[in-house]
Amino acid sequence: MTASRLNGVRYAIRDVLKEAKRVEATGKKLIKLNIGDPNAFDFDAPEELRKAIREATELKENGYSDSQGLLLLREKVVEYNKTKGVHCTAEDVFVTTGLSEAIHMLSAALVEPASNVLLPAPTYPQYQAVTVLHDGEPRFYDCLEGEGWFPDVDDLRKKADEKTAFISLINPNNPTGALYPRKKLKEIIDFAGELGVPVLSDEVYDRLVFEGEHVSTASIASDVPIVTMNGLSKNFFAPGWRCGWITLTGFPDDSLKEGILKLCSLRLCAPVLEQRAAIAGLETIDSWIGGYVEKLRKRRDLLVKRCNEINGLTCVKPKASFYAFPSIEWSGSDEEFCLELLRETGVLTVHGSGFGGKGKHFRMVFLPSESVLEEAFDLIDGFLKAKRSL
Amino acid sequence: MTASRLNGVRYAIRDVLKEAKRVEATGKKLIKLNIGDPNAFDFDAPEELRKAIREATELKENGYSDSQGLLLLREKVVEYNKTKGVHCTAEDVFVTTGLSEAIHMLSAALVEPASNVLLPAPTYPQYQAVTVLHDGEPRFYDCLEGEGWFPDVDDLRKKADEKTAFISLINPNNPTGALYPRKKLKEIIDFAGELGVPVLSDEVYDRLVFEGEHVSTASIASDVPIVTMNGLSKNFFAPGWRCGWITLTGFPDDSLKEGILKLCSLRLCAPVLEQRAAIAGLETIDSWIGGYVEKLRKRRDLLVKRCNEINGLTCVKPKASFYAFPSIEWSGSDEEFCLELLRETGVLTVHGSGFGGKGKHFRMVFLPSESVLEEAFDLIDGFLKAKRSL
Repeated sequence: MTASRLNGVRYAIRDVLKEAKRVEATGKKLIKLNIGDPNAFDFDAPEELRKAIREATELKENGYSDSQGLLLLREKVVEYNKTKGVHCTAEDVFVTTGLSEAIHMLSAALVEPASNVLLPAPTYPQYQAVTVLHDGEPRFYDCLEGEGWFPDVDDLRKKADEKTAFISLINPNNPTGALYPRKKLKEIIDFAGELGVPVLSDEVYDRLVFEGEHVSTASIASDVPIVTMNGLSKNFFAPGWRCGWITLTGFPDDSLKEGILKLCSLRLCAPVLEQRAAIAGLETIDSWIGGYVEKLRKRRDLLVKRCNEINGLTCVKPKASFYAFPSIEWSGSDEEFCLELLRETGVLTVHGSGFGGKGKHFRMVFLPSESVLEEAFDLIDGFLKAKRSL
Repeated sequence: MTASRLNGVRYAIRDVLKEAKRVEATGKKLIKLNIGDPNAFDFDAPEELRKAIREATELKENGYSDSQGLLLLREKVVEYNKTKGVHCTAEDVFVTTGLSEAIHMLSAALVEPASNVLLPAPTYPQYQAVTVLHDGEPRFYDCLEGEGWFPDVDDLRKKADEKTAFISLINPNNPTGALYPRKKLKEIIDFAGELGVPVLSDEVYDRLVFEGEHVSTASIASDVPIVTMNGLSKNFFAPGWRCGWITLTGFPDDSLKEGILKLCSLRLCAPVLEQRAAIAGLETIDSWIGGYVEKLRKRRDLLVKRCNEINGLTCVKPKASFYAFPSIEWSGSDEEFCLELLRETGVLTVHGSGFGGKGKHFRMVFLPSESVLEEAFDLIDGFLKAKRSL
């Protein structure tokens, strides 16, 4: 009964979840390192944002907002962008119901049937799924583990053609934790400029940086069409609230703006209370983000230390975000590794091939407390030792 | 640069808005009867719901919820449905980011390219727009003004064929304010059963009823596939919060459920704070809805009285919702009527043809206070008199 566009839509992460439910039902304790939800651990939205929500309930402004988003929020995004070297006006900013909605809208607006979308391998799976949903072809360009998971621009050039709808960048990266240097970004946008296609730059982890500086793609060139994406879910520790925003710079005309605005009108507006929280969030982030980053940095350091100590694991040090993407020495597929690890130890991770990655990896979050991370690595170590001795 | 699927997407209501902005910029005071947003007038979300939001900010549950929606909310929807004679389980309920998202998801899941969707004429424009967005054909069945704007089932039968993806019903109706009797609903679902296509029953105004009883379509037959749709925007006076829910009953298999769940997963979850508000709303609605309905009833009565007194206007009495769809005696198109009325008096309405209606009508809300409504009708009366004397 359902339309064929749904057929190809896969969500590899869900298969692991099914097995996890089964294992949990046997009474085994799970250590869940699979979800990018800091609020499932000892993180919560800052009081500044929660207070803004409470105050918003008293404003008697619970009607629809402008479909494009509250003007004040769009102005705050303009100010924030300016601190990153990205120059725009409130007319260039669109508020969405989380970045998921933004990705969906951009895909609907840019992907013609039979066009292709260039995605990093590994990637965040939603990009692949919405491309298929809009009858486009997800086409992967390599990111090189040996070079700190940076995009292979030669491979990107090889994969692109006249049917390319856009190039997707995720920086800081999910699932690898990589932070791209300015030079690499410049190479990519130079190529996008040559090809005349937009770059979608997902920067939703841009404040969760442990070393180095995050460079916003749109700060490098104002004459290449770039969609800069951000939102409340990660930097602001409020993933369940669903508020994101995109900024369009460098587009030769207003057609994408008009298309996005049309799609915004169809769903009336993004949630208004969360838009107020986002205003407070952008006003106050500098005062509280440091504490979150320090807490994450300690957990990241522990992760790197344990990965390097355990025989059979190696891990490129995550420079940002809260993900790591360790490589495993393992005879079977990485999906088999994750399923066996889950069944035998209760440690829940996601197989790297589920993100479109080559080789054998798993993705894990380093959001849990140090003691939970230590326990998880002890279990992984024991599991690998036992397998080797077979 | 944008994909061709956007080309056919029109939103007639927006053209009126552009002109309204122009007129307002000349300094003319507008009386805005165009938007179905009670919060733009002297209505607000009940304190019970606003309190639930404030309390939710203290719960430390700001992470993602289940993609299908909080289980407790889905259980409350099950209870609510039961009071309407609709029997289901929490597995049949899906929480969405407003009904707009639900309509979009259902369209993505059900509309194949070149299939058609049967929409009432007049209709709520989003149904038409998302059908076009998914390469389907919006096909209109008449609703008969002379019979209280009830659907013409003979016409519905004529318009349907083997390519029909679903039948859309809006009851209580936007834009006419009609409330469909059980007998009429039975005729429609009997036909849907014969044809083997789902009925999407939009019941988002089901508690805003002035006379008669709202009959939920799914209460009439459990063996016809029906999607029952409701949400916070209208009955709960919180349109900006974006929380809706759909219930699937009578489907022969789980394919639509699985399709919707896939689409739900892609956007992670509906906003969690609003889901908590919806729980409180469903628990308390019986205690506060009466006051809202009485306030609206007085405004509805005033509207009917004035429409019947003014030479050139007639109006089927709205039995529910907060819309009226008066018929006008006018030599030009109804779009010209609305534009001239706007320019000369500042009274902002939407032309009936923008909703796909036949004849000459305009849609107006009866949400403003009695004094504003009186002023608006005085202006309309003066405008019509002046036109007749030309």
